Amino acid sequence: MGTRIALDAMGADQGLGVTVEGAVVAARDRNLTVVLVGNEDEISQRLKQYRTNGLSIVIRHAPETVGMQESPSAALRKKKQSSIRVGLELVKNGEADGFISAGNTGAVMATALVTLGPLPGVERPAIAIIVPTLKGRSLVLDAGANADCKARHLLQFAIMGDVYARQIMGKPSPTVGLLSIGEEESKGNELTREAFRGLEEEPSLNFIGNVEGREVLMGTADVIVCDGFTGNIALKIIEGAAEFFTLSLKEELGKGLAGMAGALLARGAFKRFKKLVDYSEYGGAPLLGVRGVIIICHGRSTAKAIANAIRAAAECVENRVIEHIIEGIAVS
Amino acid sequence: MGTRIALDAMGADQGLGVTVEGAVVAARDRNLTVVLVGNEDEISQRLKQYRTNGLSIVIRHAPETVGMQESPSAALRKKKQSSIRVGLELVKNGEADGFISAGNTGAVMATALVTLGPLPGVERPAIAIIVPTLKGRSLVLDAGANADCKARHLLQFAIMGDVYARQIMGKPSPTVGLLSIGEEESKGNELTREAFRGLEEEPSLNFIGNVEGREVLMGTADVIVCDGFTGNIALKIIEGAAEFFTLSLKEELGKGLAGMAGALLARGAFKRFKKLVDYSEYGGAPLLGVRGVIIICHGRSTAKAIANAIRAAAECVENRVIEHIIEGIAVS
Repeated sequence: MGTRIALDAMGADQGLGVTVEGAVVAARDRNLTVVLVGNEDEISQRLKQYRTNGLSIVIRHAPETVGMQESPSAALRKKKQSSIRVGLELVKNGEADGFISAGNTGAVMATALVTLGPLPGVERPAIAIIVPTLKGRSLVLDAGANADCKARHLLQFAIMGDVYARQIMGKPSPTVGLLSIGEEESKGNELTREAFRGLEEEPSLNFIGNVEGREVLMGTADVIVCDGFTGNIALKIIEGAAEFFTLSLKEELGKGLAGMAGALLARGAFKRFKKLVDYSEYGGAPLLGVRGVIIICHGRSTAKAIANAIRAAAECVENRVIEHIIEGIAVS
Repeated sequence: MGTRIALDAMGADQGLGVTVEGAVVAARDRNLTVVLVGNEDEISQRLKQYRTNGLSIVIRHAPETVGMQESPSAALRKKKQSSIRVGLELVKNGEADGFISAGNTGAVMATALVTLGPLPGVERPAIAIIVPTLKGRSLVLDAGANADCKARHLLQFAIMGDVYARQIMGKPSPTVGLLSIGEEESKGNELTREAFRGLEEEPSLNFIGNVEGREVLMGTADVIVCDGFTGNIALKIIEGAAEFFTLSLKEELGKGLAGMAGALLARGAFKRFKKLVDYSEYGGAPLLGVRGVIIICHGRSTAKAIANAIRAAAECVENRVIEHIIEGIAVS
């Protein structure tokens, strides 16, 4: 049966087509069980389009769906039977080992906190996002779960990010950087100056000091910690910059015959490049610090991104990420 | 004689060659006087390489130079005869109408604050940076002068940015956005939620609400306000993203024959693109809120960037940016 991953079948912008296909792809690819959570009729209807012989895919009915624009607190209060809530309760009751949703991020976070609760010693669970860099991949957290943070929260983010980078990203001794302005310890704002001292004193971390905005995509640090406001702005700026550069370069290439011929010849490279910067491909963002493996996917996820997230969740379970975080926090 | 702009001749990474040439280019281009401030012998030696007949370029001796890595407070205390200090005192004494430096940014800011002081009602002068967008150009402030801000500082930044966009960037009714996470008023951190209310209530501003990181390069707002920590990280991420995208696209284009041929044909487009994203070309960053027109240039400035900054400073003087800021702050 393997690891059991519950998937919010109702959550993607493109609907059931994407989630069900992602589940089928992941179940074909490795030994695991996918529990599709949502409207039973719609899911089974959609599943018939695929050859599922020998695959371990089951359906768990959830009659309600949380809309993308719905207020997380309202969803939490009113929709006790939503695919998000039902999926998270499977994790709580031990019927699933992890949960994935490409739905309303705020609702997933709020419901996970209420249903599963935080890990011992973790005051603020954080969303961690993998970004491509010139050297490979780095993990940035918090990416937006906590707009206002204390220095000790940043230390907890660092410990959780360190575990994820070791166990899932194949980095045996990840470097940890603090996102700030200026490299010296004295640079930064009140929050980062205080956090710097805590990070420096933590013996379990390979802390390399402040990392400036320019360094994020250079891959200077494997794990980059920041408050959720700064992290969210940083990551959205990278998204916007990718769009800006692609569009303006295309426009420039369209000017003049040589440029147009060049653009035509370079089309394959452009496609590969787009994939490189499309970090939804990396398989979702773990919500670290709650009692369970939770991965949040972009609303615009493709079936491939969903399948990657299912694989990442299974790896988190099998590599005991939660247990390692509990240990890391306990000794810090 | 025209407007008189003092230029720190000693401040650029590439040395006197860049600053003196920038001065010559600007003085040829429009009716103004450039006061080159620094080592008299070195400057006059360098000036001999250019035809300066009929140009209004004068030299003001300053025996000391502030290094790029020097502590601003030490420079302020110990180097009373630095090119930065002497140049700013020319502005203070009315011998120059504006001052430009590509030197140590911290030292320019600290010395400007001490020498000239802030404008009435301005608690925190801010560095404003022009970024290219899909729609043209936007102004982001504060770009790093103030790591920790209060909500009322952000309101002052908005008023100063609004004046600059009107008077210098050719935007008669600039839209003003607050850099935050999420579009709704309720989204953001403590600082931005409070700042939102102040911005909304200010009748002189065309405030369009929160602007997310993704929107910065889309050109959604003409003026984007934020604290200096967030602004600095945002701008450095854009710089790093430009490097990242250029390098990874070049690498992708290098793969395979078609890509290589494409890259060769597209070389001109690449060069134009690089210029588009190299915002040092835009002529430096005004330090808004001090008693005088001050423009800070990137250490890596070219002669062209210096010439552009001299022109921008002359425009600030001629369009009475300082007086407009005083008025704007007074009625807010």
